[in-house]
Amino acid sequence: MARQERAVRTRRVVLEAAAEVFGEYGYERAGISDILKRAGVTKGALYFHFASKEALAQAVIEEQLGMAGGATTGEGLQGAIDLTHETARALQHDVMLRASIRLTLETTFDSPAPAPYEAWVSVIERLLTEAQDRGEVLPQVVPHETAMMIVGSFTGIQVMSEILTGRADLPGRITKFWQHVLPGIAFPGALAHMDPRGTGGYAEAAAKDLPAAS
Amino acid sequence: MARQERAVRTRRVVLEAAAEVFGEYGYERAGISDILKRAGVTKGALYFHFASKEALAQAVIEEQLGMAGGATTGEGLQGAIDLTHETARALQHDVMLRASIRLTLETTFDSPAPAPYEAWVSVIERLLTEAQDRGEVLPQVVPHETAMMIVGSFTGIQVMSEILTGRADLPGRITKFWQHVLPGIAFPGALAHMDPRGTGGYAEAAAKDLPAAS
Repeated sequence: MARQERAVRTRRVVLEAAAEVFGEYGYERAGISDILKRAGVTKGALYFHFASKEALAQAVIEEQLGMAGGATTGEGLQGAIDLTHETARALQHDVMLRASIRLTLETTFDSPAPAPYEAWVSVIERLLTEAQDRGEVLPQVVPHETAMMIVGSFTGIQVMSEILTGRADLPGRITKFWQHVLPGIAFPGALAHMDPRGTGGYAEAAAKDLPAAS
Repeated sequence: MARQERAVRTRRVVLEAAAEVFGEYGYERAGISDILKRAGVTKGALYFHFASKEALAQAVIEEQLGMAGGATTGEGLQGAIDLTHETARALQHDVMLRASIRLTLETTFDSPAPAPYEAWVSVIERLLTEAQDRGEVLPQVVPHETAMMIVGSFTGIQVMSEILTGRADLPGRITKFWQHVLPGIAFPGALAHMDPRGTGGYAEAAAKDLPAAS
């Protein structure tokens, strides 16, 4: 049992070191030796958990899938808004999410992985369907199409924010995105109750769950 | 004179070969030897025009700046819509633009280049300002902020479209983007005259200007 706990812990240490190195250098320039040094484990320990650099990268990307699945406790249209803000703030601090997004974008793998996009689309689609049932979202909105638009736009807005401001302006850019999109998807009556800046203590809650920023 | 023409032609041949190789393999995996083979020129000829792999990549990125500058003959809000559709179609076929976007996204350089984003923001901002002067766009719209939103969203929508459909659905995704955003920025009276699918013969005109697709 103690041995198993130690193995779980080692796997996590290696994964976090890999996230740091992939996040800083990108897939191609990241070296297994950098990851070993960062993790402070032996080569044998690393290869016991991950067969290759590609397997490590896939595991970092899969962490993002877990985040999309368990991401939100919000509901309806405000839940969708809050989820994008929660992700924006996590991107400012969470080494694992940052690395995962970088790996997803680099498309250095021969077959780029659609799974992270599909996972986020599915979560947003569910929230928009709920919002439509509640009468917040206009009947002509097709939740899947709107979710595709939101996830695509979010992806690019965070890339541009990273390049222009190191992601410092990302929460503000997400607020502006919703200010532009809400009039096209929400009932005027519901619009007045939506906060494009996001609501609730999600920022604090998210910060507590995050590993220490590098 | 003939010698100068030959030099210009050689530079172009090398640049186009570099775009093909960067577009296929990304910056890190692209080799000067692949580019030489593709261009069919000597090492001396390549290094006469470009000092390094990084200089080649910068030159490919700069081609995108030229495209943003001279991109559109359209005007006002419909001009902005048409520009995004023109770029979407170019991305489906133009090897140089595709490579340039890939290099811009990979952020493998130590200081990622904000210039391509700023060039596109500046063109869209000009069209939106014009649209506001013509009474197409609502007075509360701040052209710079809306242009940032459009360029950021476009960047991500084309990435997601590439990964999910090899960019086959990109024109449709751009149409959906505008359908979501137009109600938030246009006067209701102007909205009826805007076509989110883009207008005019830009698709044909763009196709004529493009180098043969690989």
